[in-house]
Amino acid sequence: MIRIIAITGMPGAGKSTAAEALVKEGWTRIVMGDVIRSETKRRGLVPDAKNTGDVMKALRREKGESAVADLCLKAIAEAGADKVVVDGIRSMAEVETFRKKARVLLVAVDASPERRYEFLKERGRGDDPMTYDMFAARDRRELEVGIGKAIALADETVSNQHGTPHKLAADILKAVERWDRNAGS
Amino acid sequence: MIRIIAITGMPGAGKSTAAEALVKEGWTRIVMGDVIRSETKRRGLVPDAKNTGDVMKALRREKGESAVADLCLKAIAEAGADKVVVDGIRSMAEVETFRKKARVLLVAVDASPERRYEFLKERGRGDDPMTYDMFAARDRRELEVGIGKAIALADETVSNQHGTPHKLAADILKAVERWDRNAGS
Repeated sequence: MIRIIAITGMPGAGKSTAAEALVKEGWTRIVMGDVIRSETKRRGLVPDAKNTGDVMKALRREKGESAVADLCLKAIAEAGADKVVVDGIRSMAEVETFRKKARVLLVAVDASPERRYEFLKERGRGDDPMTYDMFAARDRRELEVGIGKAIALADETVSNQHGTPHKLAADILKAVERWDRNAGS
Repeated sequence: MIRIIAITGMPGAGKSTAAEALVKEGWTRIVMGDVIRSETKRRGLVPDAKNTGDVMKALRREKGESAVADLCLKAIAEAGADKVVVDGIRSMAEVETFRKKARVLLVAVDASPERRYEFLKERGRGDDPMTYDMFAARDRRELEVGIGKAIALADETVSNQHGTPHKLAADILKAVERWDRNAGS
């Protein structure tokens, strides 16, 4: 059976660092944000924070709450991957979509708003916020989609508040090893 | 200035254990659920899971989203306490109400639904759910109020997934000490 490590967390919490740690252990990474960014470009829009947020909402409106998860499952099937880390879960509907097709561990990566804002300023990717107001607005958009529920209902929570990327990587690997051990696989 | 450790988390995650650790260090504990349970009794209702949930929603409808937080602030002022742990934050509106009057550290205590259900079955308090359906319904009620947002926006997250009550107590004390140190108090 396909195993999926589904990673959720607010913008800037450290989801990518956690996912990369699994990639180094042979897991295939699917970034939900990339699926949305591709779709944003396909619709002729610049993939900035506002447009990707709008397209994410449009996709859900048009094809249901699990629209992005369905696109990911298609990508997973095409790649023939059986150990997959999905980076960027935003709702429990997505998790439930994955659970129909795979054994899923939902992991929340957490950090305070203050720390996440610092991370995002340092990172400076195209769709990252540049002012605190833009950052707060992006947080609100994510929360509207239901990311707070996914974080609240996670199987594992990893704090990225005080540690290093190395510590975060170690924590996520430990959580996954424990999960695999408990399942006897 | 009054310091408040505001503790949020889903039912059964370990909020009380975390709060008790602070009580042993001289912090005054206010349980938001107690305020709601008192109000439920005052309205002539049995304080079970459904009625306390209904009264919580009624309080918010009648007096606004920060109704319970306002009652807590009154209790804090009457007690003359300046180191307070508030157990049972359910929304960011409550946190913002506290932030107007105090320096606040918002701490989320997290555990998986599976583990929380086991904890609640063991605890068996009057308003605790006895079947998984009742447990899931209670989760949904809490999430409707906005607890997922408070968990997502916490300043500190402490996982109670694999450790002991002792470990949880140690983790929360460490977080509070760090916060006090950073504020230079």
